[in-house]
Amino acid sequence: MLVAALAAFSPAVAHAASDAGGHGGTFPLLFFFLAVMLLFARIGALAERVGQPAVLGELLLGVFLGVLAWVPGLGVIETLKHETLVKDIAEIGVILLLFRAGLESNIGEMARVGKNALFVALIGVAVPFATGFFASQMLLPGLSTNVYLFIGATLTATSVGITARVFKDLGTSKSPEAKIVLGAAVIDDVLGLMILAVVSSIIKTGSLDPTQILVISAKAFAFLSGSILLGRFLSPRISALFSKVHTGHGMKMAIAFIFCAGFAYVASLMGLAMIVGAFAAGLVLDPVHFKDFLPPAIVTRLRAWASSHPQMEARKEMEEHAEHEEHAHVENLIDDISRFFVPIFFVYTGLQVNLSVFGDVKIVGVALVITAIAVFGKLVAGLAAGKGMNRLLVGVGMVPRGEVGLIFANIGRGLGVVDDRLFATIVIVVILTTFVTPFALSMIAKKARASA
Amino acid sequence: MLVAALAAFSPAVAHAASDAGGHGGTFPLLFFFLAVMLLFARIGALAERVGQPAVLGELLLGVFLGVLAWVPGLGVIETLKHETLVKDIAEIGVILLLFRAGLESNIGEMARVGKNALFVALIGVAVPFATGFFASQMLLPGLSTNVYLFIGATLTATSVGITARVFKDLGTSKSPEAKIVLGAAVIDDVLGLMILAVVSSIIKTGSLDPTQILVISAKAFAFLSGSILLGRFLSPRISALFSKVHTGHGMKMAIAFIFCAGFAYVASLMGLAMIVGAFAAGLVLDPVHFKDFLPPAIVTRLRAWASSHPQMEARKEMEEHAEHEEHAHVENLIDDISRFFVPIFFVYTGLQVNLSVFGDVKIVGVALVITAIAVFGKLVAGLAAGKGMNRLLVGVGMVPRGEVGLIFANIGRGLGVVDDRLFATIVIVVILTTFVTPFALSMIAKKARASA
Repeated sequence: MLVAALAAFSPAVAHAASDAGGHGGTFPLLFFFLAVMLLFARIGALAERVGQPAVLGELLLGVFLGVLAWVPGLGVIETLKHETLVKDIAEIGVILLLFRAGLESNIGEMARVGKNALFVALIGVAVPFATGFFASQMLLPGLSTNVYLFIGATLTATSVGITARVFKDLGTSKSPEAKIVLGAAVIDDVLGLMILAVVSSIIKTGSLDPTQILVISAKAFAFLSGSILLGRFLSPRISALFSKVHTGHGMKMAIAFIFCAGFAYVASLMGLAMIVGAFAAGLVLDPVHFKDFLPPAIVTRLRAWASSHPQMEARKEMEEHAEHEEHAHVENLIDDISRFFVPIFFVYTGLQVNLSVFGDVKIVGVALVITAIAVFGKLVAGLAAGKGMNRLLVGVGMVPRGEVGLIFANIGRGLGVVDDRLFATIVIVVILTTFVTPFALSMIAKKARASA
Repeated sequence: MLVAALAAFSPAVAHAASDAGGHGGTFPLLFFFLAVMLLFARIGALAERVGQPAVLGELLLGVFLGVLAWVPGLGVIETLKHETLVKDIAEIGVILLLFRAGLESNIGEMARVGKNALFVALIGVAVPFATGFFASQMLLPGLSTNVYLFIGATLTATSVGITARVFKDLGTSKSPEAKIVLGAAVIDDVLGLMILAVVSSIIKTGSLDPTQILVISAKAFAFLSGSILLGRFLSPRISALFSKVHTGHGMKMAIAFIFCAGFAYVASLMGLAMIVGAFAAGLVLDPVHFKDFLPPAIVTRLRAWASSHPQMEARKEMEEHAEHEEHAHVENLIDDISRFFVPIFFVYTGLQVNLSVFGDVKIVGVALVITAIAVFGKLVAGLAAGKGMNRLLVGVGMVPRGEVGLIFANIGRGLGVVDDRLFATIVIVVILTTFVTPFALSMIAKKARASA
């Protein structure tokens, strides 16, 4: 199995190994390239230091890594970025990302925010879809209807991760506005996955066959709601299983992982994207069901000490530590490996942006107009937030497309509807909507506080 | 990039994608298979519950997973186990394994045990190599000299991980015998990697050219000792760098990872195996140099509380917790991802064992004889332990071949010298030497204590 490692011994062997179907001879370089991608991702994540989401930095560093291919001697980057192993690892990354999104989505809480969040979500899907579809027809005439459909679909996304993070940083994650935005973002995830299934199906069958659309919508709906129902039923049992597992973190990770992979596989058998399955698996393993998930004995100890300790500050820190130990486990089951795979997905996406298209003024222009449409659509959605709400805050909170938009772009690329130019356009839209949100949100929040 | 995930939508697309060079259509199943491998690994790791090393259980569960291919409907396992992605992930696993072995190897401590450990190591390499080479010529006449060389080389290995674990479980890891065994095992790792380089080179050039042997030995020696020297010089600087990194675990992991991949790549450029480079990278990032590696503030707190707390038991637990928090970081930088990749390597190795060869009585017989030789060679090495030492304890401590033997077997397979039958033979030898050691060691240790 170490053919690859050893292949480097002699060019002849290397050649033979790579002829034999593997990427034998290039494996050492490929492995190093993965490490470089990981390092670039971490450097990109420093964006958080300047109040920007990590995903933005990871994406930009990916673009930068792509630019490095132009440096004499680094042309090999151009080859490496198309290697199967790099693609596969990025793909595992996006699956784990959606699994985590599912784990973080709390159905109970979603139901509680209820009607208002649902309205915001539905309008936030319908308006960007419709405006994106029609506007792109005007902006980019003469393309296939599929392309316009796909642009519309991409604009429906809301990145729950980025929004949640910003609200948390602002210290307003318990506000009614934050709850609506987060609830709506989760519903958007679900709707987005369904739209993705339908649009992909249309593109592949090549026709807008209403029966086909109905079938695929029904499947996606059945799969997701079935998973949720199954989750309600199974979770207490899984929870009991987990609390019996005392063999450390590894076994729990493996169980979570096989849930994720199993659901992703079943989804693919049903003709849905694997990420739909991974998201559903995350819903099934909903953290709230893990109340009796056994925390390490140390937690009880920490608690006991914290309560008996007189110094307030120290006590608080200890309680937080205990809290962290106790609650971190379920969501973090997958974190350890996500920390490797997920950043590589974002760098990979940035890497696929062909920077030469930016020389084309038209593309940049189109990207700016589509960004404006993307912002507009979500601001309209904010109007549905209900009485007494800061509707602007809700609307702006829905703006960032983040990773969800990128997933759409990647899938569209795979389907052949999104070419280099459109891919770059979508990446610009994602970057701008994601970049603008933290600033805008904090300004609006401060203004609201000042006038309150 | 999600071609693969989407390929499952329609068989036609799946076919196109897999024709396009990826394993498009099979990706969902392949991903699920990886999850199954991980779960099997964790189940195998339960071997620790019955006092056996985890690696043994992981290996056996891998063999079991291979057997499942005979179950009607599960024949696909036979295809999946040869997939490039599975191989690549197993390969990343073995690289991380050797990196960790390097991280755990403490050069300073090795030097302190000094002469005795060196003697034990040298004899423990020379005797098994010579007896293995000549005995296999008698047992399996008519094969190429390369095969006998490889069998000899495989028998030189000592698994430092398994031995260390057993001594720790016996509560004797601070005994002089344990220190000699661990020191010798580390020297064995280094010698083993050099022997591997030489033997591989002989096999590939097809001749026992003394110049060639000298060149490759010199390269391996230069690379490893160069890394150690470089490490002595660089480590304080790297350490300073690490302690400046406050962006959490992720950045430190990325830095450690790029060291590992960079050294592995340089090794491959020099014509050495990637694992040699990974091991050297681990030596450079030696944990002892990370004294000023910043532990989380909580550690100081924990320490303070522990010292002020009256209850002895609780205090001890807290101190251990603090110890863990403080020291876990450097070695565990890679643990998070190792927990995914490394077990897959062991399951993968078990999976490659073709069980049908066990029907051949001769193979089992040969395996038993080679196991006896393997044990004998290390017992002789134990005699060099020096005055006042329990020489039997030292000898038996050197017996387990563990993961190192498996790495040799895998490399031999890649080079074409190790066929299915020999592969199975080596796996049996590894299993037996590894299986027998914990029992034998605890018996000897108890007897020694009783007579003392």
